[in-house]
Amino acid sequence: MSVVTLTATQEEVAQQMAQLGTQARAASNILSTAPTKAKDAALLAAAMTLRANVDDILAANKLDMDAAIEKGLSGSMLDRLKLDSDRIEAIAKGMEDIAGLKDPVGDVIANWDRPNGLNISRVRTPLGVIGVIFESRPNVTADAGALCLKAGNAAILRAGSESFHSSRAIHACLVEGLTAASLPEHAIQLVPTRDRAAVGEMLRGLDHNIDVIIPRGGHSLVARVQAEARVPVFAHLDGICHVYIDKDADIAMARDIAVNSKMRRTGICGAAETLLVDRAAVDTHLTAILIALMNEECEIRGDDEVLAKLDMVTPATKEDWSTEYLDAVIAVRIVDGVNEAIEHIATFGSHHTDSIVTNNEETAAIFLNEVDSAIVLHNASTQFADGGEFGMGAEIGIATGKFHARGPVGVEQLTSFKYQVRGQGQTRP
Amino acid sequence: MSVVTLTATQEEVAQQMAQLGTQARAASNILSTAPTKAKDAALLAAAMTLRANVDDILAANKLDMDAAIEKGLSGSMLDRLKLDSDRIEAIAKGMEDIAGLKDPVGDVIANWDRPNGLNISRVRTPLGVIGVIFESRPNVTADAGALCLKAGNAAILRAGSESFHSSRAIHACLVEGLTAASLPEHAIQLVPTRDRAAVGEMLRGLDHNIDVIIPRGGHSLVARVQAEARVPVFAHLDGICHVYIDKDADIAMARDIAVNSKMRRTGICGAAETLLVDRAAVDTHLTAILIALMNEECEIRGDDEVLAKLDMVTPATKEDWSTEYLDAVIAVRIVDGVNEAIEHIATFGSHHTDSIVTNNEETAAIFLNEVDSAIVLHNASTQFADGGEFGMGAEIGIATGKFHARGPVGVEQLTSFKYQVRGQGQTRP
Repeated sequence: MSVVTLTATQEEVAQQMAQLGTQARAASNILSTAPTKAKDAALLAAAMTLRANVDDILAANKLDMDAAIEKGLSGSMLDRLKLDSDRIEAIAKGMEDIAGLKDPVGDVIANWDRPNGLNISRVRTPLGVIGVIFESRPNVTADAGALCLKAGNAAILRAGSESFHSSRAIHACLVEGLTAASLPEHAIQLVPTRDRAAVGEMLRGLDHNIDVIIPRGGHSLVARVQAEARVPVFAHLDGICHVYIDKDADIAMARDIAVNSKMRRTGICGAAETLLVDRAAVDTHLTAILIALMNEECEIRGDDEVLAKLDMVTPATKEDWSTEYLDAVIAVRIVDGVNEAIEHIATFGSHHTDSIVTNNEETAAIFLNEVDSAIVLHNASTQFADGGEFGMGAEIGIATGKFHARGPVGVEQLTSFKYQVRGQGQTRP
Repeated sequence: MSVVTLTATQEEVAQQMAQLGTQARAASNILSTAPTKAKDAALLAAAMTLRANVDDILAANKLDMDAAIEKGLSGSMLDRLKLDSDRIEAIAKGMEDIAGLKDPVGDVIANWDRPNGLNISRVRTPLGVIGVIFESRPNVTADAGALCLKAGNAAILRAGSESFHSSRAIHACLVEGLTAASLPEHAIQLVPTRDRAAVGEMLRGLDHNIDVIIPRGGHSLVARVQAEARVPVFAHLDGICHVYIDKDADIAMARDIAVNSKMRRTGICGAAETLLVDRAAVDTHLTAILIALMNEECEIRGDDEVLAKLDMVTPATKEDWSTEYLDAVIAVRIVDGVNEAIEHIATFGSHHTDSIVTNNEETAAIFLNEVDSAIVLHNASTQFADGGEFGMGAEIGIATGKFHARGPVGVEQLTSFKYQVRGQGQTRP
C-alpha cells in the first residue's frame, strides 16, 4: 500500500510541476517582449506591497522560525531564515534597485555591415524560463524573482522547506506587483509543495519548460544540481579562493589584501581560503601577514616552512589545500614563485576567484593570463568577487562554469541574444 | 559468453576514451596560453602536409568509398564521402583561412573602471576540450580540428565509420602540423575506434574531460546527442526556416528572396522550407512567387487558399508545416498578417532562421523582435544563415540553443571569458 501511495504522490507532484512549467513557458512568451516600463512597474508595485504587508510577512516568518527552532537548526541557519522589518525594507529596496537597472533586453551588443550591404546586429533577448532552487534565505524569493523578471524571463522558484511560509508571503507580494502591471501572474511562480520530488522534476527540465537552473545554497545542494540537472546550470560548487603574495609585493599592501580577502566576511564564496607566499618573500613578508591575520583571530594552518617561521601555526594537511573553510581559518603554503602558485591553484582551486599581490607587472600578467578562474585580480582583495562590486547591480550568484555566464550572474548574464539582419533584397549568389 | 565479450570490449573502449580525455585536458592546458603564432604555424604546416600527402589521402578515401559502395550507400552519401584533389586543396585552403583569422583568445570584450579605481576587463579565453561527432564528410576532421585549435581548445573528433580511413589520413596531417609547431600532438585527437560505444563515452563527458559536444550530421545524430549528452551541446536539430511575404513587400524582391531562400541550395540548414504569405498579398504577390518557384522545378504544397489560386499545387497536410524537406519542395500557407506569421513560426519553426519581406519598417520590427530564432532577417534570403556570410570566417555549425553560442558557431563562439581585475591595493570596505 505504501508504495502505491508514494507513487501517487510523486505523480501528483510531477503533474503539478509540469503545470508550473507550461504556465511559465506561456508567461515567458509574453515577458520576452514586455516593455521595460511594465517590468519596472511590477517591481516597484511589488516593493510597495512588501512594505504594506510587513506584518503578514513577519507572521509567516514566525511560523518558519518556530519550526526551525523546534527542529534545532543552527544559529547561522536561524539567522539566514530570520526576517525583521529592516530586512524586509532591504528586500523592497533591492527590488527598487533592480527596477532602476538598465533593461538588457533589446540591447545591441554588436552591429556591423557586410560588403553586400547586409547590416547585422547581435541583440540581447531573454533566456526563457529560469528555475531557481534555494535554501533557507527567504529574501532570495524576491531577489531571484526580480532579476529574472527584469531580464524578461519567467521564474520558477523552489524555496527551502524551512523558509516555506516566509517565501510564500513574499511571493504573494511579487504576484500582486505583476498583476498591478498587467503582466502574467505566472511570470514568477513559487513551487507550492515542500515535497522534495519537486526538485527532481525541475532538474529534469520539466519537459523543456525550464531553460536553466540556478542553485543558491550550500555545497550539497549545488553538487546534487550539477550531477542531476539535464539543463544548463549557473553555479559555483566551491569558492576556494587564493591570494598569492609575490616577492615583489608591497608588504603593507600584501598584508591588507590578505587580511581583507580572508576576514572581511569569512562566510562568502569570495573569501580567501589559501594564502600562497613566494619563497623569496618568506623572510620579508610572511611574518607581518601572519601576525596581522592572527590579530584578527584567524587560525593559520601552514606547511613545514610556515611552521618553521612561526610556532603558533597548526600544521596543514593535504586536505587543507582543498577545503573551503568559510570561517576564520586560512591555509598557508610557500611556493616557488608565480609558476608554482599557478600550479597549486590549478590543482586545488575551484576556478572561482584568485588574486596576486605584486608590483611586478610581468609577474602579474602571467598570473592573470594563466590562472583559469572566473575572476583573477591583481593587487585587490578577493572579496570584490561580487556583481555589485563589478557594477552589474544585483547578482543572482557567481558561476564558475565556462558556458554562457561566468563570474557574477547579473541581469545581462540572464539573457541570450539573436542576430537581426537587415537587407534591401539581398539573395545569396 | 557473448555478454562477457561485449562487456570486455565496452570496458576497453571506455578506457581508451578516458585516456583520450586525459590527454586532451593536458593538451588544452598548454593550448590555452599557446601563442597565436604557434597555433597558426601548426595550421599552415598541416595545410602543407595535406597537399604533400594527396595520394595517401586519396588512397585512404578509396578504401572508404569502396566499402561505402559495397554497403549500398546513397548517391548523396557517397558524394559527401568522396575526396578528390580539388576537395583536398579546398580543405588545405580552409586551414590557411582559419590561420588568417584573428585569434579570439585574449581579446578584451569589455573594459571599465569602478569608482574605487578597480579596472575590470572581460577577456576571451578558450573553452577547454571540445568533442565533435560527425558523419560521413571527411573534411570536417580538418575544419573542426582547425577551428578548435585556433580558439585554443583541444579537440576530440569522432568521425563517422564510413569516413574512418579518410579521416585518419587527414588527421595524420593535422598531427604533423602540431608537431612542426611544437604544440602537443594530443591537441587534436581522432577517436581510434569505430565502436559506437565511443560516442556514448563522449556524451557522458569523459569524466569532465569534454566541455562541450558539437554534433555535425543528420537529425538522428543530433537528436541522440541532445537527448544523451551530459555536457553542453552546440547544435541545431532542424532548420525549418520560413520566409514571410508581407502585403507591403516589393513583388520582385519577394519572388527573388523566396526562390533564393528555397532553391539556391536545398540541402543546407538555412534553406527555406515554408513560405508564409500575407492574405492581403494573395492577389498581388502569390502567383508570381509560386510560378517562379515552379520554374525552378520546386514542388509546391499549399493550403486550401493556395490550391484555390493555382491548381498545380499539392495539398499540404499538417506534417508539411514541420517538415525539413532539404529538397526542392516548399510548403505554402496563407496567414493573416505578420502576427499570424509569427504564431505559425512559434508553433512549427525550429528557432533557426526566418525572414520577412516587406517595405514596412514597423511590420519588419515586429517580426525581427518577436520571432524567437537565432537569425531573423528583413528583406534578405535565409541562405545567408552562415558564419562566412556573417563575416565570422569559418563556422563549425549553427546553434539554435540559447546558451553561449547561438547562430553561427565560429572561433569566437568557441571561447569563454574571464574577468581580469587590476587594482592598486584595494580592499573591500
